[in-house]
Amino acid sequence: MTVSANNWAEKIRAGDVRAISRAITAIENHQPEAEEILRQLFPETGQAYLIGITGSPGTGKSTLVDRLASHYRKQQLAVGIVAVDPSSPFSGGAILGDRIRMQGHATDNGIFIRSMATRGFLGGLARTTADVALLLDAAGKRVILVETVGVGQDEVDIVKLADCTLVVLMPGLGDEVQAIKAGIMEIGDVFVLNKADREGAERFEQQLTAMLALAPERDGWRPPVVRTVATENRGTAELAAAIDKFRAHFESAERRSEKNVERWKQRLLELLQARLMERVVGEGLGEQALAALANEVAGRRKDPYSVVSEILARAGLK
Amino acid sequence: MTVSANNWAEKIRAGDVRAISRAITAIENHQPEAEEILRQLFPETGQAYLIGITGSPGTGKSTLVDRLASHYRKQQLAVGIVAVDPSSPFSGGAILGDRIRMQGHATDNGIFIRSMATRGFLGGLARTTADVALLLDAAGKRVILVETVGVGQDEVDIVKLADCTLVVLMPGLGDEVQAIKAGIMEIGDVFVLNKADREGAERFEQQLTAMLALAPERDGWRPPVVRTVATENRGTAELAAAIDKFRAHFESAERRSEKNVERWKQRLLELLQARLMERVVGEGLGEQALAALANEVAGRRKDPYSVVSEILARAGLK
Repeated sequence: MTVSANNWAEKIRAGDVRAISRAITAIENHQPEAEEILRQLFPETGQAYLIGITGSPGTGKSTLVDRLASHYRKQQLAVGIVAVDPSSPFSGGAILGDRIRMQGHATDNGIFIRSMATRGFLGGLARTTADVALLLDAAGKRVILVETVGVGQDEVDIVKLADCTLVVLMPGLGDEVQAIKAGIMEIGDVFVLNKADREGAERFEQQLTAMLALAPERDGWRPPVVRTVATENRGTAELAAAIDKFRAHFESAERRSEKNVERWKQRLLELLQARLMERVVGEGLGEQALAALANEVAGRRKDPYSVVSEILARAGLK
Repeated sequence: MTVSANNWAEKIRAGDVRAISRAITAIENHQPEAEEILRQLFPETGQAYLIGITGSPGTGKSTLVDRLASHYRKQQLAVGIVAVDPSSPFSGGAILGDRIRMQGHATDNGIFIRSMATRGFLGGLARTTADVALLLDAAGKRVILVETVGVGQDEVDIVKLADCTLVVLMPGLGDEVQAIKAGIMEIGDVFVLNKADREGAERFEQQLTAMLALAPERDGWRPPVVRTVATENRGTAELAAAIDKFRAHFESAERRSEKNVERWKQRLLELLQARLMERVVGEGLGEQALAALANEVAGRRKDPYSVVSEILARAGLK
C-alpha cells in the first residue's frame, strides 16, 4: 500500500466527497488503485444497509428515492445513492435528467449521489455497482439506495446486492396484474404502489395483494404493499417503517448472514470473471486481434469454438 | 468427431425435430457434445435471418411472433422461434403459458419452438440463445424469431444477435413517450405499435414518430412505426414488409457483414468467458469451495480481492 493510497483511503473513511468521487471514477475505469483502496477499506465495510429499488420506467422511482433519502437524513443517517441504468448502454441522458431533481440535496454533505449508465468493453455493471456500494459503506454511509430500471438479468444481479428490495409499481402501467412477470414478483421484499392517487389504484392494490397472497412465504415474510404518492411525499414514513420491519425480521431470523454468504459467492464469481477476462483479453489479446478473429469467424473461415481454444492456449490455459 | 455425433449432425441438417431438441438440451446443459455438434455444423450456418422481438410484458409480443411465424410459413420458409425470459430466473411459468397459444403450429414440421428461462450456476443466457440460433440456422430454418422481455443488459445482449430488432410498444403502457428509455429507442430497427385499436393509439404514434424523427439516422435508416392488432392478425403483412425493407436496405449498404463481425466479437468474448469460468471454477474450484470462501469474506476474515488472486494462482494464472 502506497502512502498516497493510504491518505486517499483515510479521506474516504472521513467521508471526503472529492476522495469518494475520485475512487468511484477509478472503480469505473478499472484502475489498479481502485482495488488497492477497496482492499484496504474492506474490513470496515458491512455496516451499511443496502436498499435496492427497481421498477419500470415512469413509475417514479427517482422521486421515491429522493423522499427516502430525505427521510433517512432527518434521522441523521448518512445516505449514499447509486442510480444504475443498464438499459442505456448508449446514452446516460435519462438518468441525468432524473438527477437534476436531486439537486435539493446539493448542499448536504451527509448525502452522496452517483449515476452509472455506461459499460466498458468487458461489461460488468453489477460488479462496479457492488464495488461502489462497498466504498460508500466504508465512507460511513449507513443507508445506501441502489436504484435500477426494469428487471433484466443485470438488474436482478444488482438487486441481489441489496439487503432489502423495493419493487415500484403504479396503477395503469399494464392493466392486468397478470402482466407482471413472475421474476419481478419474486425479488420484491416490499412492494410500493406509487402514484396511488391515480385512478385504478384501489383495484390494482387488491389484485396485487391477492397475487402476493398466493406466492409462498419466504422465511416467514410476506411482502407488504405500501401506497405512496412520492411527488407529494405521501407514504414515505410508512414505506420506511415497512423496510425497518423487514430488516428486523431478517436480522432476528439470522437470515441476513446467510444471504450475505450467497451474495459474496456471486460477487466472487463476478470478480473472478472480470479478472480472467482482463488478463486473457484485455492484456493478452487486445481488442484489435479480437476483431480480426471475429472477421475470420463471420466469414466462416474459422469456427468460434476453435478460435476460443486457440486464445486459451495462447494464454497458457490449454 | 465420433460416428454418433456425425449421425446426430446429419439428422439436425435434415431438420429432425427430436435431434434438434436433444441438441438444444445439450447446449443448455453445457454438455461437451453440444460443442462438437456446433463445430461440425458451423460452416453451413449464416443463412438464416434473425429477427429479435423485445418489449415490456403485456405488449402482446408472443401473439405477434405467432402471427409473423404463420406469415413466413405461408411463404414456405422454415421458421424457428426461441422465447427467452431472462427476467424469470426463478420460474418459467409465464413463458409456458405463452407457448400454449402457439399450439396452433403443433402439427407443422416447418416450425420449431423452444422456450428458455433458466440460467445455470455460471449464467450465460445470451450465449446459450446464440448457440441455439446457430443450431436452428444449420437445421435449415430461414427465419429465426428470438423473443425476449424488456431491455435489461441480457436482453440487449440477446438483441445484438439479431439482424433486425423489433421493439413492441402499446398505447396506455406508460402514458408519456418520454418514459421510454433511451436504450430501447436506440436498439429498435422497426417499431411495432401493437394493440393499435386501443384508445390513445393515434396520439401515442404521433409522439413516437416525433421522437424517432429527433434521433440521428443510423446508416441511412429511419426506423418506421407499424401499427398492428396481433390478436386479430391486423398489420402482420405490413410488419413483414417493413422487415423486408430493412433487410434490403442493410444488405445493399453492406452493413450486414460489418454488423456480423461486431456480433462475433461479442460472441467470442462470451464463449471465452464461459470457457474460462467453467475451467477455473466449474472444474478447478467447485461450488462448495466457493461457498466456503464466500463465508470467509462475508465474515470479513478475508477480502474478496485477495481471495480472487488466490483462486487465479491456484489455476496457474498468477
